[in-house]
Amino acid sequence: MDKYFELNVDSVIDYVKSKIDFFSSDAEYKCNEIGDGNLNLVFRVFDSKNNKSLIVKQSLPYVRAAGEDWPLDIGRGEIESRILGIEYKLTDGLVPEIYIYDPIMCCMVMEDLSDYVIMRYGLIDGEIYPKFVDQISDFMVKTLLLTSDVVMEHKEKKESVKSFINPELCEITEDLVFTEPFNIGARNNIEESLVEFHKTHIVNDEKLSLETAKMKFDFMNNAQALLHGDLHTGSIFVNKDSTKVIDPEFAFYGPMAYDIGNVIANLIMNYLSAFYGMADGDKKDDFCRYMLSTIRDTVDVTKAKFLSVWDDVVTDTMAKKKGFKEFYVEDIFANTAGVCGCEMTRRTVGFAQVKDLNSIEDDSARYKAKTTNLLIAKELIINRTTAVTGQNYLDLLSKYCK
Amino acid sequence: MDKYFELNVDSVIDYVKSKIDFFSSDAEYKCNEIGDGNLNLVFRVFDSKNNKSLIVKQSLPYVRAAGEDWPLDIGRGEIESRILGIEYKLTDGLVPEIYIYDPIMCCMVMEDLSDYVIMRYGLIDGEIYPKFVDQISDFMVKTLLLTSDVVMEHKEKKESVKSFINPELCEITEDLVFTEPFNIGARNNIEESLVEFHKTHIVNDEKLSLETAKMKFDFMNNAQALLHGDLHTGSIFVNKDSTKVIDPEFAFYGPMAYDIGNVIANLIMNYLSAFYGMADGDKKDDFCRYMLSTIRDTVDVTKAKFLSVWDDVVTDTMAKKKGFKEFYVEDIFANTAGVCGCEMTRRTVGFAQVKDLNSIEDDSARYKAKTTNLLIAKELIINRTTAVTGQNYLDLLSKYCK
Repeated sequence: MDKYFELNVDSVIDYVKSKIDFFSSDAEYKCNEIGDGNLNLVFRVFDSKNNKSLIVKQSLPYVRAAGEDWPLDIGRGEIESRILGIEYKLTDGLVPEIYIYDPIMCCMVMEDLSDYVIMRYGLIDGEIYPKFVDQISDFMVKTLLLTSDVVMEHKEKKESVKSFINPELCEITEDLVFTEPFNIGARNNIEESLVEFHKTHIVNDEKLSLETAKMKFDFMNNAQALLHGDLHTGSIFVNKDSTKVIDPEFAFYGPMAYDIGNVIANLIMNYLSAFYGMADGDKKDDFCRYMLSTIRDTVDVTKAKFLSVWDDVVTDTMAKKKGFKEFYVEDIFANTAGVCGCEMTRRTVGFAQVKDLNSIEDDSARYKAKTTNLLIAKELIINRTTAVTGQNYLDLLSKYCK
Repeated sequence: MDKYFELNVDSVIDYVKSKIDFFSSDAEYKCNEIGDGNLNLVFRVFDSKNNKSLIVKQSLPYVRAAGEDWPLDIGRGEIESRILGIEYKLTDGLVPEIYIYDPIMCCMVMEDLSDYVIMRYGLIDGEIYPKFVDQISDFMVKTLLLTSDVVMEHKEKKESVKSFINPELCEITEDLVFTEPFNIGARNNIEESLVEFHKTHIVNDEKLSLETAKMKFDFMNNAQALLHGDLHTGSIFVNKDSTKVIDPEFAFYGPMAYDIGNVIANLIMNYLSAFYGMADGDKKDDFCRYMLSTIRDTVDVTKAKFLSVWDDVVTDTMAKKKGFKEFYVEDIFANTAGVCGCEMTRRTVGFAQVKDLNSIEDDSARYKAKTTNLLIAKELIINRTTAVTGQNYLDLLSKYCK
């Protein structure tokens, strides 16, 4: 196979046999195509006799729905597999393992996550994930702190910054997260009932615009650490025991707060979805209590790990100076609140929204959830330096959620 | 000439004739070798009949003083000529014009600046430069603002960031400016009489160390604009009419404050040199008055130009929000004071010092100049958010210069 061709459920089995020594010699091969096959072909290859499986993800050279008129860079999987490789090592397995990347066939052969679900949908179904806080905080502290100048040799870090500069995908974030939701028009997607509210409370709030502008420039200029870049609950696979972060295609060197704020924002929006959307009763009460503790602990445990890991990993002489650790971490969490507010805003009025809020069927409950979300978001952005503990977030939620 | 060879005063004339249509056909060619010839060969080729001249600067593949055992990247002139080309365009000629860069011979053929002097030495001789403030402020505002995300298309700016990542030379600054002077040892170069002062007032001041650490991380992570990176008075050629910035080998994307702070620091050190080192009399009084107004105006004129140019050049939607311009510029000038303090410190106790201070012959005057310099530097770093106008600098100088 020295030339690219599109795999199918038959040829992928031969492909796997020729590429990787993974299955037993007595394997009984089966294969399904999974995924929507629009940008990538995704196959699950499994041995039904010995219960082993893997995933083959092949990049398509065009958007299938649009045909060959919309070409795509076929090498994008190479970057994704490089980042997953880095994150796998740094986090001891909190992303899927990449067994092989094949640059000719543009294939990643990787760990099968069939026994996981996408966290957003699990949470919408009211599932709880007892290991999540510990694992996502590990993921963030390790991928972020260990790729920063606090820890990395500075010349090596600059080469890493250079190799992960990501203009096209950063532009999407700059526009969709930090610009369009705070203005009228563009690709915003605003429910009719929210149009006036958006204009009055978001677009016309000069203080909010100013503080968001500051967040945008921090996002564009602050090459602090290698971010995942799109760390919402749709990029996280979970089950009761394990967490796996996927889809790092937005990765670049940016402010640590961007990843942490995205996680917290998506937890908050799920909480609001439950608070306003679930039928009253024990199940709702239990789930809401679980989500509140998850929000609080994600902030507090992540922060505590930054502070406790710091002394073991710091290499920069000036970063060891008294007080710097506390300054640095406090600054991350103030900006985290700001990012959190931007993500909450854009997921309510921007181009790409979340099912958590949009799936609330009752119009008035959905209106209440979305407006509450926007008001909390606003306060997080404007008063971000005072939203730096888990309890600060819970106080805000209890202030607005009536 | 399809292969590199070292030029000499004879071959360079043929080289110039073959490469560039610059001199008249009746030219009477003369040539001098200028410069120390350690890293580069520098020739001035001139036509004594028509009074025209140019410079040929050829990179050597090794450090001549050390012999062939210390090899150098011969292509470094390519980067320098690229940056000078960008700066020439942006500033309408406030750097020497590059006529040709020849990648085979590793030669820049460029504008002759023989009728300029290096500003540091001119100032040490008590010369005044009436056009300097207007020209250096133009240089800074144009090279900085026009290469930032405020103005540039963001994807193009990221490609520019990528192409100017400069790990080796940034490391020199990180170590020599932001680390070693605030610690004991390393390559510091401290007069015997200052050893205790340095330890007590600099190294043992925890607040100073903490604030310097913040400045260091801003330098490393804040890819705000394309900096010159080494903008002291030794990198500036001047005469009564004109200013030309040279030697941009440290250029990279960093915080605008780094360039501005370097200029101001070197002006302040020259003022201290005059205040403590010049013989009392009218000449000293006039020159000190001139230096104080130059320091004040460099701050205030540069800031005023940032603010006045902004509305004409800004393209980013969020950067146009009310209050952002003032926030952005104020932030630059607070960090400028911090950089200024770091530069003043390292030029007094660090590896690379300045003649302004070291040439004061009287021991006690030199001690007074250097300790005053360190105390002002410290206050600039720690209280940088309150040193944002020219008058703030003059107040500090009058507080400490007794």
